[in-house]
Amino acid sequence: MQLWASEYQTHDMRISLRVRESLYHERSEYQDILVVDSYTYGRVLFLDGTIQTTEKDEFFYHEQLTHVPLFVHPGPKRVLIIGGGDGGVLREVLKHPEVAEAVLVDIDAKVTEVSKRFFPTLSTGFSDHRARVIHQDGIRYVKENGDFDVILVDSTDPVGPATGLYTADFYGSCLKALRGDGLLCVQSESPLVMGDVLRGVVTNMRQVAPQLAVYGGPVPTYPGALWCYTLAGRSFSRDMKRPLSFDTRYYTAGIHQGAFELPPYAREIIE
Amino acid sequence: MQLWASEYQTHDMRISLRVRESLYHERSEYQDILVVDSYTYGRVLFLDGTIQTTEKDEFFYHEQLTHVPLFVHPGPKRVLIIGGGDGGVLREVLKHPEVAEAVLVDIDAKVTEVSKRFFPTLSTGFSDHRARVIHQDGIRYVKENGDFDVILVDSTDPVGPATGLYTADFYGSCLKALRGDGLLCVQSESPLVMGDVLRGVVTNMRQVAPQLAVYGGPVPTYPGALWCYTLAGRSFSRDMKRPLSFDTRYYTAGIHQGAFELPPYAREIIE
Repeated sequence: MQLWASEYQTHDMRISLRVRESLYHERSEYQDILVVDSYTYGRVLFLDGTIQTTEKDEFFYHEQLTHVPLFVHPGPKRVLIIGGGDGGVLREVLKHPEVAEAVLVDIDAKVTEVSKRFFPTLSTGFSDHRARVIHQDGIRYVKENGDFDVILVDSTDPVGPATGLYTADFYGSCLKALRGDGLLCVQSESPLVMGDVLRGVVTNMRQVAPQLAVYGGPVPTYPGALWCYTLAGRSFSRDMKRPLSFDTRYYTAGIHQGAFELPPYAREIIE
Repeated sequence: MQLWASEYQTHDMRISLRVRESLYHERSEYQDILVVDSYTYGRVLFLDGTIQTTEKDEFFYHEQLTHVPLFVHPGPKRVLIIGGGDGGVLREVLKHPEVAEAVLVDIDAKVTEVSKRFFPTLSTGFSDHRARVIHQDGIRYVKENGDFDVILVDSTDPVGPATGLYTADFYGSCLKALRGDGLLCVQSESPLVMGDVLRGVVTNMRQVAPQLAVYGGPVPTYPGALWCYTLAGRSFSRDMKRPLSFDTRYYTAGIHQGAFELPPYAREIIE
């Protein structure tokens, strides 16, 4: 007998991982949460049937979403993470010694609970004294709070609870919640397979942000190989403002610079 | 009823594409050849159950394997392609106006026949007067021929007919078949999922090549997102020697430079 966990990445494409053991499967108030132990990628977190993160490849996404904006900012002290309840982005944010406070706002407390229980390498940041975790609607939170240097939006796909995180209204609230030289960075999906989502993020962001730049990076368990991230703010230059002072597995200074060199097929989508 | 075509990317991981129609399925003298029309990636060529190329994402691999070495070379006139019977690399090679002759040596004539019939956008190079196609064992061919500026090895995985294309002996023959400033470039698989193959290519290449550099690029339908390529020669600098003078969908001058910035997880494998 073989046990496999499959994700419909689109209606017409599936990724399937052979599974040693299914570790957890429950419906929270917001979504279906499944944790399996796979042979190829180690433990895998599925939300509503979509792979969010795996032990083996999580660093591609978490490092790229976090370190590009944090090194573009001259001195990030207060960082807000919307979504990211698994703690992967939080862990990366807290590697920056400049960060004095990292606030994580994820609507679903169950995701954090599951991450603490099944993903010990992802969830290390939750015990850091600089971390504050709030289980609340991120859209409401950014409307009522502010004074952040960087806001990172680590959302699920634009279906279910995350839909409101893809609107110009939400991006406008984020920009208002930033300090003068603050930066907003939003995971923006695959230009090859979900080009319409990337186009939507950029179109909505342009309505509210004076400047934006899209950058990329591969993510093995996400469809289309190259994933995109949209960086926005009032005015910024793309270069790293400080040297890299800690270990990474994907991100480097060379990769930082190269990430903004989008291939033509992706540039076409956002132009 | 739904028709799906699946590849076991490893024993424990599958990619599956929903299929409009199965167009061709035969065993050649060397391998099982399957062509399907998929919803997400257009027409797909499988050899021995492994996706070789798809209409929608073939440019990632073919452009990156071809243009990095051809632009690193100061003036490539004679180019040899080992494998690549589908014609994708040949098409890219012939975009370089400096190329006077491109010899393609693939052991399996059936692959070329199938590409001409089902992949009109891939197989355009076969009718170019500069192209010469030879259906013969590539290992024997490089032992008996020479005087090439660039040799590109576009092989299948190191099982079945391609096994001999991963040896130090073969790489040594390739280097001997190069002119003094000639370059050899070998597709080298996924550092995340097939790290042992990449390590083997680099180890074997180091036995015979005075200089080598590994570079990367994403390929959506290959496992592990980031694919690697090993560039080798007697002595070379990695920069582009000529400006890009034709349209591309993945490769650019910025991507050329960024491709050599390997992430730490991949560098660890080859150091």
